[in-house]
Amino acid sequence: MHVTLPDGKRLDLPQGATALDAASAIGPRLAQDALAATANGDLVDLMTPLPDGAAITLITKKNPADAAPLFRHSLGHALSQAVGEFYVAKGYPAEAVKRGVGPAIENGFYQDFDLPEPIKEEDLPEIERIMRDIVSRGLNIERRDVGKAAALEQFGYDPYKVELISALPDDEPITFYAQGDYVDLCRGPHFPNTGKLPLSFKLMSTSGAYWRGNENNPILQRVYGVAFATQKELDAYLERLEEAKRRDHRKLGRELELFTIDPLVGKGLPLWLPNGTVLREELTRFMKEQQFARDYQGVITPNIGNLDLYKTSGHYQNYSDSNFSPITVDDEEYMLKPMNCPHHMRIYASKPRSYRDLPVRLAEFGTVYRYEQSGELNGLTRVRGFTQDDAHIFCRPDQLKAEFLSVLDLTVLVLRTFGMNDVRFRVGTRDPGNSKYVGEDSYWEMAEGQIIEAVEEVGLPYSVEPGDAAFYGPKLDFVVKDVLGREWQLGTIQVDPNLPERFDLTYTGEDGAPHRPIVIHRAPFGSIERFTGILIEHYGGDFPLWLAPRQIMIIPISDKFNAYAQELRAELHAAGLRAEVDETSNRMQAKVRTAELSKIPVMLIVGGQEQENRTVSVRERSPEGLKERKGVPFADLQTELLERYRTRA
Amino acid sequence: MHVTLPDGKRLDLPQGATALDAASAIGPRLAQDALAATANGDLVDLMTPLPDGAAITLITKKNPADAAPLFRHSLGHALSQAVGEFYVAKGYPAEAVKRGVGPAIENGFYQDFDLPEPIKEEDLPEIERIMRDIVSRGLNIERRDVGKAAALEQFGYDPYKVELISALPDDEPITFYAQGDYVDLCRGPHFPNTGKLPLSFKLMSTSGAYWRGNENNPILQRVYGVAFATQKELDAYLERLEEAKRRDHRKLGRELELFTIDPLVGKGLPLWLPNGTVLREELTRFMKEQQFARDYQGVITPNIGNLDLYKTSGHYQNYSDSNFSPITVDDEEYMLKPMNCPHHMRIYASKPRSYRDLPVRLAEFGTVYRYEQSGELNGLTRVRGFTQDDAHIFCRPDQLKAEFLSVLDLTVLVLRTFGMNDVRFRVGTRDPGNSKYVGEDSYWEMAEGQIIEAVEEVGLPYSVEPGDAAFYGPKLDFVVKDVLGREWQLGTIQVDPNLPERFDLTYTGEDGAPHRPIVIHRAPFGSIERFTGILIEHYGGDFPLWLAPRQIMIIPISDKFNAYAQELRAELHAAGLRAEVDETSNRMQAKVRTAELSKIPVMLIVGGQEQENRTVSVRERSPEGLKERKGVPFADLQTELLERYRTRA
Repeated sequence: MHVTLPDGKRLDLPQGATALDAASAIGPRLAQDALAATANGDLVDLMTPLPDGAAITLITKKNPADAAPLFRHSLGHALSQAVGEFYVAKGYPAEAVKRGVGPAIENGFYQDFDLPEPIKEEDLPEIERIMRDIVSRGLNIERRDVGKAAALEQFGYDPYKVELISALPDDEPITFYAQGDYVDLCRGPHFPNTGKLPLSFKLMSTSGAYWRGNENNPILQRVYGVAFATQKELDAYLERLEEAKRRDHRKLGRELELFTIDPLVGKGLPLWLPNGTVLREELTRFMKEQQFARDYQGVITPNIGNLDLYKTSGHYQNYSDSNFSPITVDDEEYMLKPMNCPHHMRIYASKPRSYRDLPVRLAEFGTVYRYEQSGELNGLTRVRGFTQDDAHIFCRPDQLKAEFLSVLDLTVLVLRTFGMNDVRFRVGTRDPGNSKYVGEDSYWEMAEGQIIEAVEEVGLPYSVEPGDAAFYGPKLDFVVKDVLGREWQLGTIQVDPNLPERFDLTYTGEDGAPHRPIVIHRAPFGSIERFTGILIEHYGGDFPLWLAPRQIMIIPISDKFNAYAQELRAELHAAGLRAEVDETSNRMQAKVRTAELSKIPVMLIVGGQEQENRTVSVRERSPEGLKERKGVPFADLQTELLERYRTRA
Repeated sequence: MHVTLPDGKRLDLPQGATALDAASAIGPRLAQDALAATANGDLVDLMTPLPDGAAITLITKKNPADAAPLFRHSLGHALSQAVGEFYVAKGYPAEAVKRGVGPAIENGFYQDFDLPEPIKEEDLPEIERIMRDIVSRGLNIERRDVGKAAALEQFGYDPYKVELISALPDDEPITFYAQGDYVDLCRGPHFPNTGKLPLSFKLMSTSGAYWRGNENNPILQRVYGVAFATQKELDAYLERLEEAKRRDHRKLGRELELFTIDPLVGKGLPLWLPNGTVLREELTRFMKEQQFARDYQGVITPNIGNLDLYKTSGHYQNYSDSNFSPITVDDEEYMLKPMNCPHHMRIYASKPRSYRDLPVRLAEFGTVYRYEQSGELNGLTRVRGFTQDDAHIFCRPDQLKAEFLSVLDLTVLVLRTFGMNDVRFRVGTRDPGNSKYVGEDSYWEMAEGQIIEAVEEVGLPYSVEPGDAAFYGPKLDFVVKDVLGREWQLGTIQVDPNLPERFDLTYTGEDGAPHRPIVIHRAPFGSIERFTGILIEHYGGDFPLWLAPRQIMIIPISDKFNAYAQELRAELHAAGLRAEVDETSNRMQAKVRTAELSKIPVMLIVGGQEQENRTVSVRERSPEGLKERKGVPFADLQTELLERYRTRA
């Protein structure tokens, strides 16, 4: 047999040769440094026979990150071995520890166990210590082929292994991996020696997991770890995790009193507290201003609709999993609205329209209700009731591109306003080979062409995803990256000739005949709940002045200046700014600290000098800490703050 | 026997004397002029024996309006007689016309009939003509006592009369009233002669009405008429009716495209069209500004709640008739929220509160759903889903009066903003004799005392209505009169210690112990839907600039000036004003007419001279017709309009 090296050279090897054999054939130093390989692009370990003719690349300690799935998998085995030793040290026989699966996962690994007593959170450091010891032992990791009978005998004490082995074919060898006295049923691939595993790993937590993911099976205990090729990467990852925890919108939502979820009111139904309501209303006002400038027209429709409405639209038939159960009213049935579209279709249909009236852009902050399983619910980002900044643009086919471009323009403006500059688009087009797509070819060519032309004009990165269109028309998703580098899919823009058809919508063309409008569905925020959840995490609760629910805290250095503070507060409040006075008997530094904890962006400290000169000392939160300006004339400051508020700086 | 006259004189009369006997005893002229009388304050006719010792007043043709219920009742008999003659003239026997009841009502009268063929709308003038003829015949109206057997014989042909007579006691005389050859079973009272009836009446319409109001009974045909003492009063009434029709919010709602109700969406569930949405959002913005100025805090809560929430609040048990049927979600039941209170109670309970934090004023434009029978639904004023400008003020007992006063102050300010200056209050207090009222006497004295003190300070008319309080606390209704003189009961302000009790709400007092807050429920608009309906009728669709959905129509005198018009429109729009350009090919006068029909308050006419000087010709709608100003510099006009918009002038 032979393999091909990256430089194109052919290497002849004996039948059944492994990547380690290939490395040895090149040189002993490489054999020593090798950690893993790729064969025809797939990661393989050094111990597995290579396919004949494979194009191989060796991965060495120079670029260990390339072999991350392997060292994560092997660290899983080290964990498995360590847990065995941990229980033996406690006096249990080795067979008392039974094992489920233990794969590599994104950023780390896990292993499932059936244990004589559960691992406690405080046991993890000791288990981690044993793992490090296993690394320091420098155990060779060996691959063995075993017959089924021998395999069953070896693992006779472990019902999970027995179940797995029994399901394998009788006549094929079964693979074990072994290191020291630890052996496991495993397909691999693995590192060649525990001594080559990185020490940059950490056990994170344990949880319960059903054997084979089936809730009728016993629950095993799962231990999670994370692992990276270098300590630096691990530290960065742990820091990002910590940061994500600090920014968790559920935690900040509670601390900043933005929202609460109350079981007596209902699961997945957030109550917007006063601070959250301010934030939401600022978002709404911002979007309404943008929509007014672009000649959208507001509408308001009820939260329920007759079932016949949703039968006409198809929502009743097609989304039954997410629809709430019907409400009986006299001899009719109603439903909480899952979408605003049907109501808007009927508003379009409520009077005759001419080609001159189009486009008609109907916008609504419409609250909709969709069932989600209770296990899926999560703070503001996964809820059962939410409000969309929804709009439906009814246009002529020749207006599609301009309208689409205008929607993209608005969307990008909106995201940039929140410092979300890393935006990309995914254009979902038809897969012409799939018969589920309805409508004329000419329609699809027109619609897809106009969307892609519009996206090209915007000039941001985009990908075309054939087969991602809805059955009736192409769509565009936008994906943003937040400050933690996490990607969020926000809204979708959808081209839809289907609902106009179902609701028999028309406009009178220049030719005097009825024509069918096309509808664009769009919602730049998507769900205000979800968008707010993302914003909370994106800003870590440190909102810019215009969004901050509590904008200004006035801090009198003592009781004597409460009256002056209240006078300033009254002026700021009358001008429309959100200002408070800390009139507690705390000392000034404690008041500053309280305001900081509440993430109030602007503090105005006032004492005798300030009162005398009608000035304030300004302290502002910034990523670099508090910025201080002394003796700022109050009138100037008010003008400055109002301007920053007005311009959403 | 004797009676007493208004001047205190005693008049001795023979036993069984009538008011006519009394008049005759005073003088023949008075006997001639008398129409009716009052005996001990009750209206009586001239033909009925007076009670011995009664204080009587005679009503003559000098003040016929005092006897309105009598002449309306007698005109009902004239109608009944006329319909009989109408069918006899058509060739039917007199017995073919059978009769239900026929009382006097507010402003007029009606009579129910079972007829061989129905009366058509176009028959009414002929029937009215016969009625006038009956008046001109000057028939004496006589009162007769008849035995039951004779009564049954007389009306044997009429099953309705037989049913009524059969139900009367056997041994008491039954009263008939007769005029000419027309006789009816009737208790009276009536005018003495058809010749004395006013001719200032009009038959208005017919409708169906179940016999005795029971839907299992046959439907009779009801004919309605209106009648006043003078033609002038009748004309004024008919003019008010016409005006009310012109101002009907359902008609104007359609014509001005404010809202529509679509059976496919649902009965009683208005869809707010773009123009109505602008109006509603202006109302909302106005109220939010007022609430911000008064330190209310906004909250937003879902449109549904767990049934347990409404069991805790008592809404589930106590308002089952108006609750929609429950929605099942997994193993829970939810309900469309009929009120926002329970959600707000839970928000109050979501964190500890101190006496220093109170009052807490939670405000929400909360959309609620309440079942109404479909026959009761009416445009925007009677709906199944509506949005309240709701707020709950949680306060200490010592803050009740100040908070109540502040709510009254806001309410009066709101109403005055809409030119509703005729406001009165009804204070509902406890009826101390009724045991349904719960709570300590001291609480009631405190709460009622503080409300009445607050009302006194406002200085507007009020009445105290004992027994009108809720079982747990006093309340205040406000009633306004619109430009047509119709009274509307708007919101209610309610003092409530009950929900804080049911939700176990507390605050920590200065003494460190938990205390129960009191809640004030208030909603100055009440329902935004209903308030908008009333506003549409109040303004007759001619909204002031700030409320007008379409504020400015720019009318180029020809195509040549479309560009200039669009330039002005862009500037006005960018400044936040709602401006449009009429670019149709219509002539200028036709464009003005179109704008007038749409009740757009400001028209800007632009031509060559205007373009050259950057001016506009302004035409504004006013109660006196169009007011015109020529050559107004555009910049000045924009400043003026913005100022009027901003100040809600």
